Amino acid sequence: MPPKNTQPKYRQIADYLREGILDGTFPAGQPLPSEEALAKQFGVTRPTVRQGLTELRASGLVEAIMGRGTFARSPYNRPSFTYPRGVRRSPDGQYTEADGIRWTDAEKPTATRTDAPLALADLLRIPPGEPLFTYDALQTADQGYLRQLHRTYVPFSVLLGTKYEETPPPPAPQLYNALAELGHELHFTEYVRTRMPLPDQAQALRLADGVPLLHVLRVTLTTAGKPLTLEELHLPGHDLELAFGL
Amino acid sequence: MPPKNTQPKYRQIADYLREGILDGTFPAGQPLPSEEALAKQFGVTRPTVRQGLTELRASGLVEAIMGRGTFARSPYNRPSFTYPRGVRRSPDGQYTEADGIRWTDAEKPTATRTDAPLALADLLRIPPGEPLFTYDALQTADQGYLRQLHRTYVPFSVLLGTKYEETPPPPAPQLYNALAELGHELHFTEYVRTRMPLPDQAQALRLADGVPLLHVLRVTLTTAGKPLTLEELHLPGHDLELAFGL
Repeated sequence: MPPKNTQPKYRQIADYLREGILDGTFPAGQPLPSEEALAKQFGVTRPTVRQGLTELRASGLVEAIMGRGTFARSPYNRPSFTYPRGVRRSPDGQYTEADGIRWTDAEKPTATRTDAPLALADLLRIPPGEPLFTYDALQTADQGYLRQLHRTYVPFSVLLGTKYEETPPPPAPQLYNALAELGHELHFTEYVRTRMPLPDQAQALRLADGVPLLHVLRVTLTTAGKPLTLEELHLPGHDLELAFGL
Repeated sequence: MPPKNTQPKYRQIADYLREGILDGTFPAGQPLPSEEALAKQFGVTRPTVRQGLTELRASGLVEAIMGRGTFARSPYNRPSFTYPRGVRRSPDGQYTEADGIRWTDAEKPTATRTDAPLALADLLRIPPGEPLFTYDALQTADQGYLRQLHRTYVPFSVLLGTKYEETPPPPAPQLYNALAELGHELHFTEYVRTRMPLPDQAQALRLADGVPLLHVLRVTLTTAGKPLTLEELHLPGHDLELAFGL
């Protein structure tokens, strides 16, 4: 007799489905067995099956599509989108994004003035509380399939005594050419983090349950290593990868 | 009279705590109000409070520490560890990791032979199923606080007709010097992805609930852009960031 499985039934169901998704029994993009079939197979009620499915949804291994059922997602598939990170400089000195993605603003971007919070002041090497021009944009590409939240921060101190003291400069990437005009040669460092989205981020980026964010911070620096500006990107962690040349 | 909140109570509790964590009412690293206090405040039973806390744990905003209670985590804090990604070449031609972290193997690394799965064959530009030398290591640094899963893949075809055909080469980063000895000049591309961990990864990396993985794939290429080897890193998405010079 095989040893008795002492796990709760909903977890046994989650384990059974997880193993099936990982070994290809339930291929990515295909529907899982129905709740009814699973309830019968494990001798449980449908709420118990649903509890097992909830656990898998939270781990990003299945996706529930309204009115169509529950579909397997493979953690091994290569993402459809590769997002090359970098900034190019053309022979005429213009800076452009190396990503080759045509982002468009899904909503009118907002420009505000914020005070530098501690964690950002640190990256910009300015005193916490220093005022910043802040631009927020929700951008889409590829017919809305790709979405990102893009924020640009420009410390007032960087613009002191320049023509942008009165009229703020454009947000990145146009910002780079404005900075170049002020005589800066630009260098870039990116910091990549991840975490689960906050509810408003999950909604704006249309994230399914169990999909974390990629959080990218780009610092623009002078040749001497002085930070000038900061950008924050929040991207869906599903079906997307960032690419960096080392 | 304020409009009646129609959300279920457990969600109202989760929203209340989330807002408090985000606005600093419940500072990062500090304990949240007790289950008892929350039950009283919202007029609910403790299981309902726990349901609200479970939701916040899944989103990585609180951490339950056995026997000590539930603590707030800020999504805004700068991580304690910055992990610079890159490979340096010393004047004598030796390749070394630029991370400056002293990783040690927590367990004896395992060497196996695997067949290239589709998603990796694609990155290595070899036919799916081609045999690979595969090394697996669980590595720790900083007195065990930092943990990573490190896998190195070397296609047999890269070693054909070399002295490593019989005795496999060492895993990365020593591998780089073995490849350099074979006459290759090396270039590196990294792909960064994220997702929720599988149960064995969560255990090996000691991840709390609601903490995603950073998944890094490093491809080592020749000057002509031919992929030679592949490394896979799985890192905790908590309290850690990757840094890239663009």
